[in-house]
Amino acid sequence: MPNPASLPALWLRDNCGCADCRDPRNGQKLFQITDLPDGLAVATETRLADAADGAPGWEVVWAPDGHRSSYAESWLAPQRQPERDRRAEDAKTLWQAADLAGALPSAAWTDYRNDPAVRLRILDAVGRLGFAVLREVPLREGQVTEVAETFGFVRETNYGRIFEVRVEQNPNNLAFTGERITPHTDNPYRDPVPTLQLLHCLVNSAEGGDSGLVDGFAAAALLREQDPGAFEVLTRTPVPFGFSDSGSGSGGGTELTAHRPLIGTDPRGRVREIRFNNRSIGTLRLPAADTDAFYTAYRGFARLLLRPELQLDFRLAPGDCLIFDNTRLLHARTAFASSGGRHLQGCYADLDGLFSTTDVLRREALDQLAALFAEQGSAEYFGEEVTQAQHMLQAGALAEAAGAPAELVAATLLHDLGHFHGEATGHDLMRGTDNRHSHTGADWLAQWFGPAVTEPVRLHVAAKRYLCAVEPGYFELLSPASVHTLAVQGGPMTPAEAEEFAAGRHGADAVRLRRWDEAAKDPQAPTPDFGHFRPLLAALLETHPPV
Amino acid sequence: MPNPASLPALWLRDNCGCADCRDPRNGQKLFQITDLPDGLAVATETRLADAADGAPGWEVVWAPDGHRSSYAESWLAPQRQPERDRRAEDAKTLWQAADLAGALPSAAWTDYRNDPAVRLRILDAVGRLGFAVLREVPLREGQVTEVAETFGFVRETNYGRIFEVRVEQNPNNLAFTGERITPHTDNPYRDPVPTLQLLHCLVNSAEGGDSGLVDGFAAAALLREQDPGAFEVLTRTPVPFGFSDSGSGSGGGTELTAHRPLIGTDPRGRVREIRFNNRSIGTLRLPAADTDAFYTAYRGFARLLLRPELQLDFRLAPGDCLIFDNTRLLHARTAFASSGGRHLQGCYADLDGLFSTTDVLRREALDQLAALFAEQGSAEYFGEEVTQAQHMLQAGALAEAAGAPAELVAATLLHDLGHFHGEATGHDLMRGTDNRHSHTGADWLAQWFGPAVTEPVRLHVAAKRYLCAVEPGYFELLSPASVHTLAVQGGPMTPAEAEEFAAGRHGADAVRLRRWDEAAKDPQAPTPDFGHFRPLLAALLETHPPV
Repeated sequence: MPNPASLPALWLRDNCGCADCRDPRNGQKLFQITDLPDGLAVATETRLADAADGAPGWEVVWAPDGHRSSYAESWLAPQRQPERDRRAEDAKTLWQAADLAGALPSAAWTDYRNDPAVRLRILDAVGRLGFAVLREVPLREGQVTEVAETFGFVRETNYGRIFEVRVEQNPNNLAFTGERITPHTDNPYRDPVPTLQLLHCLVNSAEGGDSGLVDGFAAAALLREQDPGAFEVLTRTPVPFGFSDSGSGSGGGTELTAHRPLIGTDPRGRVREIRFNNRSIGTLRLPAADTDAFYTAYRGFARLLLRPELQLDFRLAPGDCLIFDNTRLLHARTAFASSGGRHLQGCYADLDGLFSTTDVLRREALDQLAALFAEQGSAEYFGEEVTQAQHMLQAGALAEAAGAPAELVAATLLHDLGHFHGEATGHDLMRGTDNRHSHTGADWLAQWFGPAVTEPVRLHVAAKRYLCAVEPGYFELLSPASVHTLAVQGGPMTPAEAEEFAAGRHGADAVRLRRWDEAAKDPQAPTPDFGHFRPLLAALLETHPPV
Repeated sequence: MPNPASLPALWLRDNCGCADCRDPRNGQKLFQITDLPDGLAVATETRLADAADGAPGWEVVWAPDGHRSSYAESWLAPQRQPERDRRAEDAKTLWQAADLAGALPSAAWTDYRNDPAVRLRILDAVGRLGFAVLREVPLREGQVTEVAETFGFVRETNYGRIFEVRVEQNPNNLAFTGERITPHTDNPYRDPVPTLQLLHCLVNSAEGGDSGLVDGFAAAALLREQDPGAFEVLTRTPVPFGFSDSGSGSGGGTELTAHRPLIGTDPRGRVREIRFNNRSIGTLRLPAADTDAFYTAYRGFARLLLRPELQLDFRLAPGDCLIFDNTRLLHARTAFASSGGRHLQGCYADLDGLFSTTDVLRREALDQLAALFAEQGSAEYFGEEVTQAQHMLQAGALAEAAGAPAELVAATLLHDLGHFHGEATGHDLMRGTDNRHSHTGADWLAQWFGPAVTEPVRLHVAAKRYLCAVEPGYFELLSPASVHTLAVQGGPMTPAEAEEFAAGRHGADAVRLRRWDEAAKDPQAPTPDFGHFRPLLAALLETHPPV
């Protein structure tokens, strides 16, 4: 573990979390980088068992100004994962059509509205797969903006707050005809481009008019693999895009232009934005050799994007609302009879609002856990000398100190939450009725966490029965209360049960959890706050469910 | 001049402007790049005097598919300027405070509303200087969104459609206190970031609360000059920005994060976006050497941004509405008494809409010129065998064929517009009253064009008087009508007048214009359409007024 003096001083001080340096309400920094004195250095550093949120860390006194900061050891850990740029390819799950066969990320509108876990799953799918479909959305005109407002703000454009995708008499865009439209991103001539699009199907009785989606990031990755030179040309060549609409009346109309590459990358070369629209690409003015190189690469990428195996085909039914990332996914539709019978309403919105909503949902999930620790958790722990919250926090700290993976730290921290859920309580357990708290806890946690967290929780009672069966002397380690409940929970395992348990995928993790469980009943042991574990839990919530 | 077969074939064909290839209404391309046959090549090319819009150019027949395209020679010209990316530094006028001393780009709200040329000047100032101020904007709550809607769409954020900049009881942002705020860009934690900000001053009776603006592009250019290594570090390091607000109630609140460099560049390395906000910069996780390099560069840039000579200081008065580019300008304010006395309303909007509006205004100016050519211009030209429009179009074509600079081509094309303006008409001139059409024309054109266009127009009558005075035999070149009007216009110059004329800045250009003027009265000569000159005029409108 690095000590503070071994770390870059300006960085460390810039991340001081004291109330003078950061607004406790919103985390805004209250000083400027130019306010920090020249020659800044750690004057003294002291390791403390409860430096920050009750967890081990360091207290630092700074020279030359005497400012004091404290840092949790886990925050300083060199393996600490950086926050990811969720707009870049490495935060995404790239896909081809077959990867999703028959399993579009979808949910019913009422479930989405009523269940935060469903909302998080759908919005995370938009973030990570690039799209999701809401079903049974009310067939009401204007409803599409209400969908957008569940996670962000409508981006109004020259097409209006809402646009009507149907056959128009005097269309200013091919979208408003019955023609086939090949895969493209929308509004490449806008800068900033609308980063999200919503399409709400009101009517689809037309012959044709099927939908298609292509993962532009996957296509770009394929191009990079197959023709790195072409990929590089497309990332380094700004392309003019334009759209012109004469409008009506003075000051009406639109003359949009933007100059952006077809494949936008971040400063580290990661794919971050696709713009692809043959209809609105303008006139490139480059030396002949560059023009040739661009056109060869452009045509190669266009051909790749038309490969059938890349395109997910499906049909929107009335009530479906497709939400997709317009900086990544290309959308297409087959031709349909211009006599109509197909009507979508669309609107644009932005990814930043969507990601904010997913993070608020994750924060609220953590707030709910924090409240369980603070409220039910403060109750006595059935005959032990610590509260239930102290017990779980100590167990989590032991797992963390042992260097357990984040999933197992979380499982250990949350292993007894089932006492707070389910019809039978911990008191029932003490009175002789098994409340099956390992199962109710695991089931409740499954709305937010994956099996690497939930299954060790589910098995932590079985692990006690296993250890008492196979490990001489383990029984003697149990606290009197635990001995009491062992009987209610079924007693030590039979040899056949123990063999089956040991062969299971999560048995070993459950055994590790169980040992920390037994050891976490010491009223004198240092006990971190729940807040200490929030970043670890937040990072786990970030990647669940895997899409 | 290049012939078509010498140019990249895919590029040339992709730019075919025929009605099968492009929608005549909006210019959308009607084919895909993958539709073009392999082995595409020019089969035959024929030079025609009136290939496109009546101007010289080429007709091409393509192999292998026999498609026909035509291209104006001026469009093929190798010196043809590419459209610029108006978001990048080379399309901007960079400034330090002294460059603007006492001359903020500003206009009264009513003039801005009523006069398209004023509107264009103000919005162009936002595009090129990064800001402008509207004065005497009605002191009405919510008015700020009405200002935004004159050129685009409001971008709603977590702060609302409108935000109140005044002392709040429970501020979620330093902006809503009376504290000093150093130069920063807003919402760096949004991606896409709002590209424009509007601040409408309703009350400013507070002590303090003065405003400051810093041109972040100029500061970045300075950093690049003084410390190229630091510049490079800041362009290549994505920085995490964050903003958190607990909000109230379920699903409320905000958790925004974005990962973007402090100095964003386009694929060619040109500065395109500044994000700078000490309050919301998050925790960088980089190897120690990179962290040190970043912090050294970051602090250097921060110090540079605080240099007094970079910051334009001014005070918003009630009724002022500041519009500025939030991807380029940093804004600041001095502290003011927290008892209040200062109230701004703000909103966000986007640059793409603003640039669309300036281009629509330019298009409308050109439409107005086109209508003059089509309507008044179709009248007989006072005794000549061509119409006034034919005369001006021929004159413009002669100037273009002679390789004159764009300004002089435009002046020659538009030299007689004064016949259509002013109280006296061309008919009055023929009846013996000088309509001073060179002056009325120049004055009218001055709303859209600079002196390199207007002054040769103003002097084109004087040039006739000059040439008749100094050039033996010139008088004999004049048409009978021109001889007639020479007398009304004052006859040949005196030697003193001629000397003064020749010494003037625009005399030589006026003489060139005049010679094309005399030669452009041939009913048999090829005559391009007005449309042929639109791109040239549009490019000139683009850079006027110089800011």
